Amino acid sequence: LVLQTDSTSSLSRNGKLREKTLTLDTLNPQVKAVEYAVRGPIVIKAGEIERYLEEGGTKPFSEVIKANIGDAHAMGQKPITFLRQVVALCTFPELMDSPSFPEDAKRRARRILQGCGGHSLGSYSASPGVECIRKDIAAYIEQRDEGVPSDWENVYLTTGASDGIMTILRLLVSGKDSSRTGVMIPIPQYPLYSAAISEMDAVQVNYYLDEDNCWALDINELHRSYQAAKQHCQPRVICIINPGNPTGQVQSKKCIEEVLHFAYEENLFVMSDEVYQDNVYAPDCQFHSFKKVLYEMGPEYFNSVELVSFHSTSKGYTGECGFRGGYMEVINMDPEVKAQMVKLLSVRLCPPLAGQAAMDVIVNPPQPEEHTFKQFHQEKSSVLGALAEKAKLTEKILNAVPGIKCNPVQGAMYAFPRIFIPPKAVEEAKALGMQPDMLYCLRLLEETGICVVPGSGFGQKDGTYHFRMTILPSIEKLKVLLGKVRDFHIGFLKEYSGLE
Amino acid sequence: LVLQTDSTSSLSRNGKLREKTLTLDTLNPQVKAVEYAVRGPIVIKAGEIERYLEEGGTKPFSEVIKANIGDAHAMGQKPITFLRQVVALCTFPELMDSPSFPEDAKRRARRILQGCGGHSLGSYSASPGVECIRKDIAAYIEQRDEGVPSDWENVYLTTGASDGIMTILRLLVSGKDSSRTGVMIPIPQYPLYSAAISEMDAVQVNYYLDEDNCWALDINELHRSYQAAKQHCQPRVICIINPGNPTGQVQSKKCIEEVLHFAYEENLFVMSDEVYQDNVYAPDCQFHSFKKVLYEMGPEYFNSVELVSFHSTSKGYTGECGFRGGYMEVINMDPEVKAQMVKLLSVRLCPPLAGQAAMDVIVNPPQPEEHTFKQFHQEKSSVLGALAEKAKLTEKILNAVPGIKCNPVQGAMYAFPRIFIPPKAVEEAKALGMQPDMLYCLRLLEETGICVVPGSGFGQKDGTYHFRMTILPSIEKLKVLLGKVRDFHIGFLKEYSGLE
Repeated sequence: LVLQTDSTSSLSRNGKLREKTLTLDTLNPQVKAVEYAVRGPIVIKAGEIERYLEEGGTKPFSEVIKANIGDAHAMGQKPITFLRQVVALCTFPELMDSPSFPEDAKRRARRILQGCGGHSLGSYSASPGVECIRKDIAAYIEQRDEGVPSDWENVYLTTGASDGIMTILRLLVSGKDSSRTGVMIPIPQYPLYSAAISEMDAVQVNYYLDEDNCWALDINELHRSYQAAKQHCQPRVICIINPGNPTGQVQSKKCIEEVLHFAYEENLFVMSDEVYQDNVYAPDCQFHSFKKVLYEMGPEYFNSVELVSFHSTSKGYTGECGFRGGYMEVINMDPEVKAQMVKLLSVRLCPPLAGQAAMDVIVNPPQPEEHTFKQFHQEKSSVLGALAEKAKLTEKILNAVPGIKCNPVQGAMYAFPRIFIPPKAVEEAKALGMQPDMLYCLRLLEETGICVVPGSGFGQKDGTYHFRMTILPSIEKLKVLLGKVRDFHIGFLKEYSGLE
Repeated sequence: LVLQTDSTSSLSRNGKLREKTLTLDTLNPQVKAVEYAVRGPIVIKAGEIERYLEEGGTKPFSEVIKANIGDAHAMGQKPITFLRQVVALCTFPELMDSPSFPEDAKRRARRILQGCGGHSLGSYSASPGVECIRKDIAAYIEQRDEGVPSDWENVYLTTGASDGIMTILRLLVSGKDSSRTGVMIPIPQYPLYSAAISEMDAVQVNYYLDEDNCWALDINELHRSYQAAKQHCQPRVICIINPGNPTGQVQSKKCIEEVLHFAYEENLFVMSDEVYQDNVYAPDCQFHSFKKVLYEMGPEYFNSVELVSFHSTSKGYTGECGFRGGYMEVINMDPEVKAQMVKLLSVRLCPPLAGQAAMDVIVNPPQPEEHTFKQFHQEKSSVLGALAEKAKLTEKILNAVPGIKCNPVQGAMYAFPRIFIPPKAVEEAKALGMQPDMLYCLRLLEETGICVVPGSGFGQKDGTYHFRMTILPSIEKLKVLLGKVRDFHIGFLKEYSGLE
């Protein structure tokens, strides 16, 4: 008798088949349910092609361009000198004696280290973050919001914004709950939200953004979504992403007021993802923080609506993704819940100190009277100016392609064009068991080396198809990329419309 | 009619009381169940006293000594120069031109940056970590284990070891599972484990370490614990901490073999917390990795037992807690499960890059032929030598106190002495609704400023009491601290034995 062994089993001493303890069958099903398109199958495929090229393989292109993720430095963006100087000084304080580091940076580094145990970036901080950094963040928020008060004890440093978002959802969602927790999210959304909802076994409650109206949030759609959800779960929280990811819209003040009024009336906890607050390009748009709008609605609102706003070092003009820095400001949270949250945060000890230091520079940048101001300001304007130009360029070139329609990229870092996919291609995709826009993006990758993410990974109205691409490549590269997308799209249409 | 409002409600426009959405009643009950003594109530109290002293208040002591947490730099330990040089170079590559940085450090920094997107620490890495760092870690493991093969694709960088431990438990535990997952942990344990188990709603299965035998792990106790647990849950995973936290023991090779054999027979997934692998002080003890022991048990074991080992930048001789660096090596994990794990990791994008760089230095330190070797080696030996001395000193002084009994601190960074608490003190604590060792530690804090963690926060045999203290303060400070503990303990015994 020969017993077959395979990767999930081995033969034990007594001849019985030893099964693996952890297999796809025994894996936590909530992990299985998680999807995260931004680093999903298409990106794994892109990595494979990249390695194939490195090893001397040939393709119709010489490099893979990863426009799938908002990873600015990987696309060639240079770090802000002042930020890196401060973090380097904190990391290696012997540099305090170096004349090549500006006094402004040394002053900030000294102050941060004063707030660290043993004056070292190697100590744990308090779980909510270094106290002086929390204070700097509160001061920044007050200034940003033109005087609306911010209490530093409501500010919590996080390991990127994702960590903060997961923490807040963890408080709100119980896997055991029989009356299941509904989490309202925009569609299209950033898939961290849907992934967290799957992992925690909450109910995803979709509200659709209005593509025909530049991805605006429509209050009637919120009501519809909420009422429909109430039939099968208990909606307790609404998530908003402003400026939008993947959709790039910047919400109007009126729209934010409507959302907050709705949350007030329906007793919803508000999670406001504002990581792109510095990324607004359209001249007729302006970033309005949810907190400031809430304040202006009067004390009845400002003293009652539970609101958390998230920010990050990864976006804006710094693009420091690898530092995993971020913060959240929590308004009107029940003090007992806050204590429970601090307890939960303390299990993971603290966010990385270098990320906390980077966050501090962002909220406490060089001032006009400081020597470093000029260079800092030039670098910042250069990044934001280029992004604005690329936003405009992307919209313009894409809209000139037959079968592609792209809303203006008012903010954030992405275009989310709608693409027409011929019925024959839709059929082919279905036969292959994949989403039509996945087929489209795979073909795009294989023929041009351009890696973008199918709209189905973010959610979209049934029967519509999109992809998300970042606007981060350099202008020259972006033009080449958009040209290739255009040529590919035209070829794809021809092929599947039988016009070839 | 006057409606009272309090912190959990406010009066809405139409006069109805607006309840908060998120209160202690509606909070995820699994969050409520979490306890984490290392940063628990006693540490919060210590922070309050610290602030009180800063603001000019007076106490019978001038400073709070935080011996509650393994936070080396906060206790005055100096960073390893070479590590900080490499991370500073990675952070601010302009320093590559500086003659004051050694070529050895520059070479490593260049290599790390080559592995980063856009050659910047500001890019996201792949979710499992930077490829060349994973390769360095695998090479380190092979060397440590004297040739036992290590595949770099089994190595995953983490945000401190805690993050890795949570990730693996998340795969194994489903909150929805009706046949609930049992997680075997040592008692006493590091409370990350109990906290994770509470948060994920798994079943904590205790196996007791043998205090009378220097906290050794007894295989019969493992069997007892497993059989008892099988009555009410499905034990699927066993966690071991070696060297022990809080107990400081170093496991013998024979003991590890027994654990692995047991895991093999009972089909348990093995989680081996080896973050203190460089912290072994007792001359008759040696660190044996679970992986090497498994290898030596033969292919039948080595090719089947599912094993994860965790390591960290926070402990050892570097003590770089704030960098949140760490890794795990995963053996015999089902390939499909591994793909699911990578998907789960990708939702949080990646561990902090500075922590990854710090981990790289630890696994790829200066070699004897390199210029930096001498200084590096001196700094490393100095830290580990002092720790060994402090381990000995702590054991000796504590054991000279009547009513305190302390096992040898063979490894790790803690003493976990057993303390006799008089029945009258036990009664008083019970009347106050607190654990007797909590009463003891609170009194110690209030009378001496010394902050240690009650044994009840780690688990202990019923009717026994302990506390955990780090051996991290400088030798001078440690002597003062231990003297104060002695005096306090004697006074405490007198007071509650009615001998005063």
